[in-house]
Amino acid sequence: MPTYTPPVKDQQFLLHDLFRISESDTPGYDELDRDFTAAVLEEAGKIAANVLQPLNEVGDREGCTLENSVVRTPTGFKEAWEQMAEGGWMGLDASPDFGGQGMPHLLNTATGELFSSANMAFQMYVGLSHGAASALAEHGSDEQKATYLPKIYAGEWSGTMNLTEPHCGTDLGLIRTKAEPQGDGSHKITGQKIWISGGENDLADNIVHLVLARIPDGPEGIKGISLFVVPKFLPNPDGSLGERNALSCGGLEEKMGIHGNATCVMNYDGATGWLVGEMHKGMRAMFTMMNEARLSVALQGYTQGEVAYQNALGFARDRLQGRDVTGAQAPDKPADPIIVHPDVRRGLMDQKSVTEGGRAFVYWGAQMIDRSQRMDDEEAEAMVSLLIPVMKGFLTDKGFDTCVLAQQTLGGSGFTREWGLEQFVRDARIAMIYEGTNGIQSLDLVGRKLPQDGGKAMMAFFEIVKTFIKENEGDDALKSDFLDPLKAASKDLQAAAMYFMQEGMKNPLNALAGSYDFMHLFGHVCLGLMWGQMAKAAGDALAAGASDTDFYETKIATGRYYMARQLPMTGTHLARITSGADTVMALDAERF
Amino acid sequence: MPTYTPPVKDQQFLLHDLFRISESDTPGYDELDRDFTAAVLEEAGKIAANVLQPLNEVGDREGCTLENSVVRTPTGFKEAWEQMAEGGWMGLDASPDFGGQGMPHLLNTATGELFSSANMAFQMYVGLSHGAASALAEHGSDEQKATYLPKIYAGEWSGTMNLTEPHCGTDLGLIRTKAEPQGDGSHKITGQKIWISGGENDLADNIVHLVLARIPDGPEGIKGISLFVVPKFLPNPDGSLGERNALSCGGLEEKMGIHGNATCVMNYDGATGWLVGEMHKGMRAMFTMMNEARLSVALQGYTQGEVAYQNALGFARDRLQGRDVTGAQAPDKPADPIIVHPDVRRGLMDQKSVTEGGRAFVYWGAQMIDRSQRMDDEEAEAMVSLLIPVMKGFLTDKGFDTCVLAQQTLGGSGFTREWGLEQFVRDARIAMIYEGTNGIQSLDLVGRKLPQDGGKAMMAFFEIVKTFIKENEGDDALKSDFLDPLKAASKDLQAAAMYFMQEGMKNPLNALAGSYDFMHLFGHVCLGLMWGQMAKAAGDALAAGASDTDFYETKIATGRYYMARQLPMTGTHLARITSGADTVMALDAERF
Repeated sequence: MPTYTPPVKDQQFLLHDLFRISESDTPGYDELDRDFTAAVLEEAGKIAANVLQPLNEVGDREGCTLENSVVRTPTGFKEAWEQMAEGGWMGLDASPDFGGQGMPHLLNTATGELFSSANMAFQMYVGLSHGAASALAEHGSDEQKATYLPKIYAGEWSGTMNLTEPHCGTDLGLIRTKAEPQGDGSHKITGQKIWISGGENDLADNIVHLVLARIPDGPEGIKGISLFVVPKFLPNPDGSLGERNALSCGGLEEKMGIHGNATCVMNYDGATGWLVGEMHKGMRAMFTMMNEARLSVALQGYTQGEVAYQNALGFARDRLQGRDVTGAQAPDKPADPIIVHPDVRRGLMDQKSVTEGGRAFVYWGAQMIDRSQRMDDEEAEAMVSLLIPVMKGFLTDKGFDTCVLAQQTLGGSGFTREWGLEQFVRDARIAMIYEGTNGIQSLDLVGRKLPQDGGKAMMAFFEIVKTFIKENEGDDALKSDFLDPLKAASKDLQAAAMYFMQEGMKNPLNALAGSYDFMHLFGHVCLGLMWGQMAKAAGDALAAGASDTDFYETKIATGRYYMARQLPMTGTHLARITSGADTVMALDAERF
Repeated sequence: MPTYTPPVKDQQFLLHDLFRISESDTPGYDELDRDFTAAVLEEAGKIAANVLQPLNEVGDREGCTLENSVVRTPTGFKEAWEQMAEGGWMGLDASPDFGGQGMPHLLNTATGELFSSANMAFQMYVGLSHGAASALAEHGSDEQKATYLPKIYAGEWSGTMNLTEPHCGTDLGLIRTKAEPQGDGSHKITGQKIWISGGENDLADNIVHLVLARIPDGPEGIKGISLFVVPKFLPNPDGSLGERNALSCGGLEEKMGIHGNATCVMNYDGATGWLVGEMHKGMRAMFTMMNEARLSVALQGYTQGEVAYQNALGFARDRLQGRDVTGAQAPDKPADPIIVHPDVRRGLMDQKSVTEGGRAFVYWGAQMIDRSQRMDDEEAEAMVSLLIPVMKGFLTDKGFDTCVLAQQTLGGSGFTREWGLEQFVRDARIAMIYEGTNGIQSLDLVGRKLPQDGGKAMMAFFEIVKTFIKENEGDDALKSDFLDPLKAASKDLQAAAMYFMQEGMKNPLNALAGSYDFMHLFGHVCLGLMWGQMAKAAGDALAAGASDTDFYETKIATGRYYMARQLPMTGTHLARITSGADTVMALDAERF
């Protein structure tokens, strides 16, 4: 059975040594001093390690069941849900007006990380409810907010997002679900939605479905989609549960992983719903949610990587096979622990450096979302919009790779269910697919985000890298191990962007055929930047006489590994990109 | 439910256009003309597609069960086994003296490919039986051969290999299983073996276990291991089944995949066994089996990739989402099939080019094994020994990646059990682990194979690449798209080998820390060579007026993709290798 230790020290390092959040001018950050965040993270960590993690294997084994339209979640999930609700974790970053704790999104991201590492399938119920609430908070009427938000933040009701239909996943312009106006302000919703996480469950008394649907006689395609709130039970004016709505779960998907989360087919048979926001502006409402939603999936990549790495490390320290080539390390034992072997270390260092780099990248993103939401910082909004597809696409790919590597560290044991590594691989796999497949992320990046405002955000990113390098060029400890590789990688990224500008203009296929490589190239430069900044922060802490020298030196050593062993990928990505679309598009569809 | 179409045309292209096997001087190859191999492959393909493939999902869903020491394989497996036996597929390349068909190993590899794509878990029962028989054929006494081989080749008995014990997977010097001489030529075998594929099953009347064990008072470590044949039922002199042996299945592993194959804990409680080959030379016996065994696992990588690719392709042609950026391709439909999108094609071309390249590489390996076995060709033996860890390590990694990519092509559907792609991912995962983890393959490559005979085989490999480039330099169709990239990649490989020679001499860690990247770098150069040769063969066929121009042009276009988009990885691998061991080994074990 796997174990999980909340990496609070690493989190604190990012919040305080690297990002120095309590010195930030972002409203609310002044409260986030070292002691306060430590207390919050320790508390969340206890729930993660003691309540959620032990249920992770239970959820995988039992899965969810559907009987007479009722979904049963795995043993213990309801009790865990109640503990999460009692602790106030559902509304940590929600408005106090509706029962939330009013904390920054960054803190919610850091606690969410712990819950997600411990039990991704469980945390999805919480995360989706949070997402539905955020959409209502942003676009709902005052009455809708007053009706739904306090219930969701209190964990009494859960929430879902209903987008996909059987014939359309990515292309939401094809949506067929109808919303017929009833003349009383309500609509009758009719249609089938699939892949609805938590669409039906026994955790909450009521389920608040947000549903994309089409009002008759509206524009065709994506411009005719509206957003509706469609509760399982119609709320009475006093907040109690009224009539059962005409919607039901028609089936559960059998999946590769996240078995503890119910993936539902939802049938709406003339269900009563109310418009959220403006008519035909449903997609716009989705878009404003997108950064937050995709950041929460980006996080799933490295959180599964973190717990997988921890267990691979434990195994590598215990398992005795072979001898250190430079001389026995455990001569009193029949063999040395496998962590002595260079190739085992390579795997562990890959896992460690990618996970810690990913965490820094996501925390940076969460801070920009806070700035965008709390102080209308347009530059932060533009930057995070540019980087979100990179975070989601790159970090979930790398998170999955990390889980596969961690599984490999265990050899044959990694393939058995007993050790639990294979569950992390199966669970992490979905993050590359949902919330927009990673291919779609790369299309969003290259087709939309990169050229936005004449490439302004991209140029601002290069400026950040340049400034960081320039400001630290005199630092010999950083120069050759961090700044030089970062400069080279950033140059590759610039060359790729330049190629898209020149060749993509002539033929858009030349840009689109390289979009996936561009997303990864960009991701590596971002993690290179994060590692440069982390190395500097660690170096500063050492120079300031920090007592925990081991911790900071390890941070720097891990960064050196990333720069030497991961960052060189930028060259290959650039070579692929500049080979253009010809070889990619050479075959007619029937000649494959 | 996934489908499978045997790729006989691709196989025939390799056998006849590329390798021109019927012109080879390898004994037995003269029989392998185009019509003959077509007939054999078509016949095997029918069993694969009609019998084995429909059972693949059944095997995954039902798994194997253990009751009262009896293992039940999934519904239909026994009937399929009987059909395989009746068709003579179990002993296709076995000696006619023992009921085999006497065909070259190459042909067995090509038919095995079809069975493995169709149902990897099933084919493992066949493959392991074949492996046990090969070990007996190579090292057994005449009596042992006469007793066991005809039964195994007839499918009446199955076979297993028993190496691993709970405390030792890779490090077989730690084996504890005892073999006590009984004075009558037999030994009493006592100990526990784990991860024994097909250790107990209901397919065959008897199970022939080959077991590594330690004879008391022998040398310690790896030099004191002997090989024993330990049948489930002791055979009577007339070949009928005698007494039940003191061995039993103590449990089945719950695993990530290959559920149709029973992975057994085997308990030997003073079971009767007989020495195979010389005392204390058990590991040597294993070693002579290794090339064949590892080639059969290398094959599993691309065979799962092949079937996954086929199903991804089918989905990409059918699924309608979005529009071709250069203009609607299916204006009469609500959207275009997703195969129009460049990033979907990138995924498909990766899948296709890696799979077809892998097939060529494995067929080359099988031919060298035939030369080594049938004409004692030492150069072929040395070359295949060098390349086997590359084939096993690189192709199973790439095969798994291919399955993951194919799953990604399906988006959300890829994560559901219904579409079956996720099973290929779960099944393919084991090939990176068993028969020596891929990390161990890289260690074998860099630590043993590369320096063997002063690097003679490695130099011979470079000579093959050089000769191919030189002989075709005048061919403009090959020059810039194939020969130049191959030359550049081969130079990277030479630089890496040179680095190991120079830096590994000073500090072995510098070689071992780069072993995994070296294996992949080498693999890419091999597939680059294969694609160069395939492009040349296809060009020759076109020049000779072959009627199926589409087929040959597609081959060349697929090769161009590999050279442009896959081969640039050699640069990154070289950069990682030449960064040395410092960053890899920087941390003490307790500081991770």
